[in-house]
Amino acid sequence: MSKQTVDLVVKNGKIVTSYDIFEGGVAIDEGKIVLVAKDSLLPNADNVVDAKGNFILPGIVDVHVHVQDPGFPQRDDFEWASKAAAAGGVTTFMDMPTNVPPTTTVKAFNEKKELAEKNSIVDFALWGAPDPDNLENLKKLAEAGAVGFKGFMTKSVILKGLDTGTLLETFKVVKETGRFISVHAENGEIIALYTEKLKKAGRKDYKAIAEARPKIAELEATSRAVLMAKEAGNKLYIVHMSTPDALPFVVNARKEGYEIYAETCPHYLFFTKEDHDKLGGAGIMFPPLRDKEDVLGLWEAVRDGRISVISSDHSPCTLEEKNREVWDVIAGATGIETMLRVILSEGVNKGRITLNRLVQVMAETPARFFGVYPRKGVIQVGSDGDLTIVDLKAEEKITIDKLHYKAKYTPFEGYTLKGKPIVTIVRGEIVAKDGEIYGKPGYGRFIPYQEYKPSV
Amino acid sequence: MSKQTVDLVVKNGKIVTSYDIFEGGVAIDEGKIVLVAKDSLLPNADNVVDAKGNFILPGIVDVHVHVQDPGFPQRDDFEWASKAAAAGGVTTFMDMPTNVPPTTTVKAFNEKKELAEKNSIVDFALWGAPDPDNLENLKKLAEAGAVGFKGFMTKSVILKGLDTGTLLETFKVVKETGRFISVHAENGEIIALYTEKLKKAGRKDYKAIAEARPKIAELEATSRAVLMAKEAGNKLYIVHMSTPDALPFVVNARKEGYEIYAETCPHYLFFTKEDHDKLGGAGIMFPPLRDKEDVLGLWEAVRDGRISVISSDHSPCTLEEKNREVWDVIAGATGIETMLRVILSEGVNKGRITLNRLVQVMAETPARFFGVYPRKGVIQVGSDGDLTIVDLKAEEKITIDKLHYKAKYTPFEGYTLKGKPIVTIVRGEIVAKDGEIYGKPGYGRFIPYQEYKPSV
Amino acid sequence: MSKQTVDLVVKNGKIVTSYDIFEGGVAIDEGKIVLVAKDSLLPNADNVVDAKGNFILPGIVDVHVHVQDPGFPQRDDFEWASKAAAAGGVTTFMDMPTNVPPTTTVKAFNEKKELAEKNSIVDFALWGAPDPDNLENLKKLAEAGAVGFKGFMTKSVILKGLDTGTLLETFKVVKETGRFISVHAENGEIIALYTEKLKKAGRKDYKAIAEARPKIAELEATSRAVLMAKEAGNKLYIVHMSTPDALPFVVNARKEGYEIYAETCPHYLFFTKEDHDKLGGAGIMFPPLRDKEDVLGLWEAVRDGRISVISSDHSPCTLEEKNREVWDVIAGATGIETMLRVILSEGVNKGRITLNRLVQVMAETPARFFGVYPRKGVIQVGSDGDLTIVDLKAEEKITIDKLHYKAKYTPFEGYTLKGKPIVTIVRGEIVAKDGEIYGKPGYGRFIPYQEYKPSV
Amino acid sequence: MSKQTVDLVVKNGKIVTSYDIFEGGVAIDEGKIVLVAKDSLLPNADNVVDAKGNFILPGIVDVHVHVQDPGFPQRDDFEWASKAAAAGGVTTFMDMPTNVPPTTTVKAFNEKKELAEKNSIVDFALWGAPDPDNLENLKKLAEAGAVGFKGFMTKSVILKGLDTGTLLETFKVVKETGRFISVHAENGEIIALYTEKLKKAGRKDYKAIAEARPKIAELEATSRAVLMAKEAGNKLYIVHMSTPDALPFVVNARKEGYEIYAETCPHYLFFTKEDHDKLGGAGIMFPPLRDKEDVLGLWEAVRDGRISVISSDHSPCTLEEKNREVWDVIAGATGIETMLRVILSEGVNKGRITLNRLVQVMAETPARFFGVYPRKGVIQVGSDGDLTIVDLKAEEKITIDKLHYKAKYTPFEGYTLKGKPIVTIVRGEIVAKDGEIYGKPGYGRFIPYQEYKPSV
Repeated sequence: MSKQTVDLVVKNGKIVTSYDIFEGGVAIDEGKIVLVAKDSLLPNADNVVDAKGNFILPGIVDVHVHVQDPGFPQRDDFEWASKAAAAGGVTTFMDMPTNVPPTTTVKAFNEKKELAEKNSIVDFALWGAPDPDNLENLKKLAEAGAVGFKGFMTKSVILKGLDTGTLLETFKVVKETGRFISVHAENGEIIALYTEKLKKAGRKDYKAIAEARPKIAELEATSRAVLMAKEAGNKLYIVHMSTPDALPFVVNARKEGYEIYAETCPHYLFFTKEDHDKLGGAGIMFPPLRDKEDVLGLWEAVRDGRISVISSDHSPCTLEEKNREVWDVIAGATGIETMLRVILSEGVNKGRITLNRLVQVMAETPARFFGVYPRKGVIQVGSDGDLTIVDLKAEEKITIDKLHYKAKYTPFEGYTLKGKPIVTIVRGEIVAKDGEIYGKPGYGRFIPYQEYKPSV
Repeated sequence: MSKQTVDLVVKNGKIVTSYDIFEGGVAIDEGKIVLVAKDSLLPNADNVVDAKGNFILPGIVDVHVHVQDPGFPQRDDFEWASKAAAAGGVTTFMDMPTNVPPTTTVKAFNEKKELAEKNSIVDFALWGAPDPDNLENLKKLAEAGAVGFKGFMTKSVILKGLDTGTLLETFKVVKETGRFISVHAENGEIIALYTEKLKKAGRKDYKAIAEARPKIAELEATSRAVLMAKEAGNKLYIVHMSTPDALPFVVNARKEGYEIYAETCPHYLFFTKEDHDKLGGAGIMFPPLRDKEDVLGLWEAVRDGRISVISSDHSPCTLEEKNREVWDVIAGATGIETMLRVILSEGVNKGRITLNRLVQVMAETPARFFGVYPRKGVIQVGSDGDLTIVDLKAEEKITIDKLHYKAKYTPFEGYTLKGKPIVTIVRGEIVAKDGEIYGKPGYGRFIPYQEYKPSV
Repeated sequence: MSKQTVDLVVKNGKIVTSYDIFEGGVAIDEGKIVLVAKDSLLPNADNVVDAKGNFILPGIVDVHVHVQDPGFPQRDDFEWASKAAAAGGVTTFMDMPTNVPPTTTVKAFNEKKELAEKNSIVDFALWGAPDPDNLENLKKLAEAGAVGFKGFMTKSVILKGLDTGTLLETFKVVKETGRFISVHAENGEIIALYTEKLKKAGRKDYKAIAEARPKIAELEATSRAVLMAKEAGNKLYIVHMSTPDALPFVVNARKEGYEIYAETCPHYLFFTKEDHDKLGGAGIMFPPLRDKEDVLGLWEAVRDGRISVISSDHSPCTLEEKNREVWDVIAGATGIETMLRVILSEGVNKGRITLNRLVQVMAETPARFFGVYPRKGVIQVGSDGDLTIVDLKAEEKITIDKLHYKAKYTPFEGYTLKGKPIVTIVRGEIVAKDGEIYGKPGYGRFIPYQEYKPSV
Repeated sequence: MSKQTVDLVVKNGKIVTSYDIFEGGVAIDEGKIVLVAKDSLLPNADNVVDAKGNFILPGIVDVHVHVQDPGFPQRDDFEWASKAAAAGGVTTFMDMPTNVPPTTTVKAFNEKKELAEKNSIVDFALWGAPDPDNLENLKKLAEAGAVGFKGFMTKSVILKGLDTGTLLETFKVVKETGRFISVHAENGEIIALYTEKLKKAGRKDYKAIAEARPKIAELEATSRAVLMAKEAGNKLYIVHMSTPDALPFVVNARKEGYEIYAETCPHYLFFTKEDHDKLGGAGIMFPPLRDKEDVLGLWEAVRDGRISVISSDHSPCTLEEKNREVWDVIAGATGIETMLRVILSEGVNKGRITLNRLVQVMAETPARFFGVYPRKGVIQVGSDGDLTIVDLKAEEKITIDKLHYKAKYTPFEGYTLKGKPIVTIVRGEIVAKDGEIYGKPGYGRFIPYQEYKPSV
């Protein structure tokens, strides 16, 4: 049995699995994990990273990111979004199809893929979107490697909103692809009526957005999407759930045997609608912020498994677009770079979830749902050498000048968070370390959807 | 980074985790797993096992075994039961407290522990039992390392049956220990009445046992045990469930947040009551065999998670005790040596469960429930070097002359099963290989209960 | 205790209550029931009706009738609709607000009331409708005596369809009135999409209507209406449910304590979609006809209480409007005159429901829900003298020439039904007897909503 | 139509039905109600009772009474129990089979029937009981007119307690009779253990009885009885439920379609365990008194239909038997004479239930469940002339010297109750009026079970 020198060894860490933690290190060669062992048995390596007793996690997989390029490169692009990802411990992100042109055709899909391949410093996957007038494209997008599809139940600036009829038809075609469709679940009719009322009443405070988009709008759309998915038999993924009140629709369907799941985001786990006025445009995201009991209820649901995934819903825009009056603000959170810190600080360090559960909802489950497992999402021989080392005790104040994405604001501005990623490794290369970016544009690779089937 | 020579390397295998399978090998040193890697990175070793492309599983943990010694060494003892375990791929077994004297005191517990330490060739853990007249002993047994407690709701030859009052009192004390209590759930009053009726009617066929112990007896006792556990707040484990009809009590309680689980056994996953007459005394176990739809329903429940654990309920007796008339037969299955084969053959090779699910229900979950995880139940750096290599394709007819336990019968006599363990390794030592026993009496160690707490 | 002569005595009958049947007669004076007694104790009377051993029911209350006047007097009007009612055993009908002008204002309400008072030969009550632009009118309509409100979730020719936002706002105002809102529950977006598809495919058969309006359209709208009613806290009444698959939404809400109920109609209890081609335009009603198992399931639900009311949904149009191609037919059933016969024939005489249950779903419950109980809906001293005598054994073939409403078609044409009303009495006056009309236009009175409160 | 003079007319009342109240009177002739009418239409009568504007209820049916004769005539007998019934507004009572000899045979049944016929002043029906050694007797008792059967799940002084096996066998035979079996649901094993503990601890306070018979004992037995009834398919009636916590077992079974119902009693609707020490022996009944929230929860359940019947569980003993130390007291409430007052005072006058609901749970439903409807339980032409006139406003202090049963104590001693029966009429004869007894021993008739089937 001959020994060899590997590309990279990470030593002296606490390796976190989805159920356990043990001391040791990882060896990576030619981009793949080739060995997990006690430190004393680690092979020789060209490069060695000393984790210094910190926790080694599988690289974080952020399944819900709107890079905005092509279409809105002034908001963010693959270079800067991927640098933010790297700095934030994210080794793979999945880009949403809300571009101009929208990612509803294989042509648009491949063009975006090429753009990302040229510019991203971390790995990425791509979502497609249904064009109600050409649903057959969904199958072609699936063949091209789309990890899933994204649909809007409200009117959307870019993608056509899906009314109940097209939603059902779309779901039926999605079922044939075997992929998830993710749905933005808010009822546009309720929102339109309440928005109109509030505008007429002269409301201009930012908190009015929460009244314009009440919980019942989210509950109704969630209920309807679930009903249609049960009718069509497809896999459904409710994105950015803002309130645990919407969970029973999802959880009950699952008890009946349907593959229907929900995601939430760091901002819903941190802010309440009381923060809207303080945050201004930076706090405008759809659905809006809710109440303290929603924040606590979502944490409980992340803990107990009712919520399956945490994503950033990173969706930046320009400062000008954020600095408008409430009704004209472009909605969307920034968050790919702060997500892991928020969850470490508010979740793990406050005892709401274990590091193991964090690995489940931010690496393993995202990878499984969207066809990149076990290549991503797990520290295991044969998997990609993607690691995120975190220092649980480091405390740091968030300021926009230290963040990398283009948009010059963060709702977390000024908050001190405890716990942060200190090294991010993608396929054996260090892409970020101690706040510095080391990855080069073009290093990131496109990860196509691949159905996971255990061999036996 | 210096290299060293380890005690044992297992190479050229497919490593099975609870969710995945990957190619590679394992290094074990001083009894612990120290490395998992691609073959090319395995260290030098004093001994090398070539898995020849077969599957490497975490060593099987059989949580429900009645060795019968002290009390009935003529039925089985630690030497021969542990040899059967080794040959059957079981690296840790947990012995039930149904001895003479019963394991209701620390004295009896420690005496049995010593007896097992002298004779067992694989690792073992021990159950305690409640003495209704001295429930405080439960706490002492817990301190002595008991993995849990076993109670009978029917009259039992050895342990005092627990009526509803003592059951409740016992559960309240069990709660304080943090351990599970496992319960044999059949209603003795229903059984007594039906048995009497059948005897009076002159029934002597073996199938009469199924009528004497109808499903409702099992359903009632399961329902009652669950109700008492909800009242007391303790952890409950229903052993050897013979019918999926009893599962709703358990599953609904779990949905309400209670830690209440169920186990089934290979014989309930293989035989029906139509086999009773053919099997004769060898097929008499309590609860009795049920119908074809119960067999299929139990497999479905093993697959979907409603059943959490498969154990052997190995409980042998002498041939004379089995060859009696139906009403006088000593009940109890043999099975520690055939369990894994049955599940590989009927479960994995028939596509009913994956190898991953097998690892969950026969290694990982048993280890977690009963306090030996992550020392046992997982292939992970730092865990004990317990491995079971299985050849999924090997077909072999079961005959009692090739089995190692003392009792000279098996209900599986004459059946050809597909899939079998070929190498069994305990803490880095090969204890069985290709049907030969290599372990020495006294090698096996007592594994005390240790609460598993992830460090963060 | 002096005796007096009363206006009318009905003798020699079997009086049917909602739970029981007993022999005797009823005395009516000045329009009110003044006595119920054994025949030998009946008082002297100006008029005597001999029931000849037949069953005496409380007068049937048909809560769902579209007379169509004002607006479409060519389709039907109060004189002929009320004559059909009388001949069909209906003593009180409740007219829907789908008129031109729609009954959304007190002015329109009162004008229709006057029109009906001049022409109806039986008693009547009136529904109002929400004008989304002036919801405060609902309160005024309630004060004017409206029994409830009717809303459409699909686009409607006359009333504005209520999108989810206006539905919710409407429900909130309805809650303040204490009345029920009844909702036509079909999802217009699904229907529009499927209709378009079928038209494009060149489908012109009448059965295509069932495909254009699939069950899921009804399920979705029912689910959504129930969700909004739970949000607003108002009382909800789902009209003309065509499939038992929609019932769980209603029944589960009721188990949670909400006042949410469902109605079905004779055509859904008789025909299947296989009949669509045979029936042609006469069989086009929304929702469309379903399958045999739906018919049977609805009967089961009428029997066991999940369905609370049977109404006719009498909604006639001209022959020309019915004789169009499938996509241009004006939808709507005729049925006020045949409803009781269908239920006697298919329900009571086929053993699916008792006469008592018929009294519950066609007299007592309708009267209670919509504010005319105990004035209507019960044979009790002090209640209005409204009686419907039925001969359970009479068999008769339905032909349009014997029916009284204006529209010259019936889906039941040519069917022989067993059981029919033979005498209809409104406030002590015989309005129909043996197929002859005796009532005079203008006899019928407006019955305003009156909340029923037992005195203790 | 000739007029006649009837035996009795009750005039000037408010007649209470199960859903409504109207003004008028009732005529009774030859024991039957022959007419219900406005006062002006009442016929001539030999006797006239002026209700003076008070409420006329159907005669109260008390389904759960232990007269104790034969066996314990010193405790109570048919003469005095029936006089108490009459004074308490009860026109029909159903006597339990807990006699010496027990009512397990037709011989004992008929002997008791004769005894009651000689002595009772109001009508009565009789329960039978299962003799586990001769279950076929149940069918004979059914033929003899038994209204149902009573079984004890605990050991009982007189009737053999039914263990789970005999319970199941009994239920299977009961199913064939079509009758209800009523079950005293407490777990004897739990009670025995706790009683022993409390005795050992030297407890002698009366409140100890509540600890000796904890809720879980009642919950477990209720759960088990329901499970057995679901297995056997028979009709089950849980007597004297003391806590709403036991209701879910009953209610859920009903939702699944089983005929399983629950009863409660005035003492559980009035007292809490805090009253035990004050009440002494007079407050000892099984199950024991519970907490304030149980009292309120039971009222809520009476109101909303989860509890179907209120009975007295009148079960008197001698003063000496009550004046013993807590563990030796003979358990059992007195209550037939105070039941209606308690429910009027605490239920109707406190707004917890309507008079209509009182009629449902104390007349109509009891009569229906136990085969005496519509002869009893309803004011309707053809039914027996049983009426109870109540003055809702009368306030009176309860003192034992004004009560008629033999036992010289009442737990309600000294309490002032508002609302009381002022006239009690059985088959047209006044048996009690204004506290005076007018009925003669031997007037009461045996009412056999008769299945109620509406004629259509």
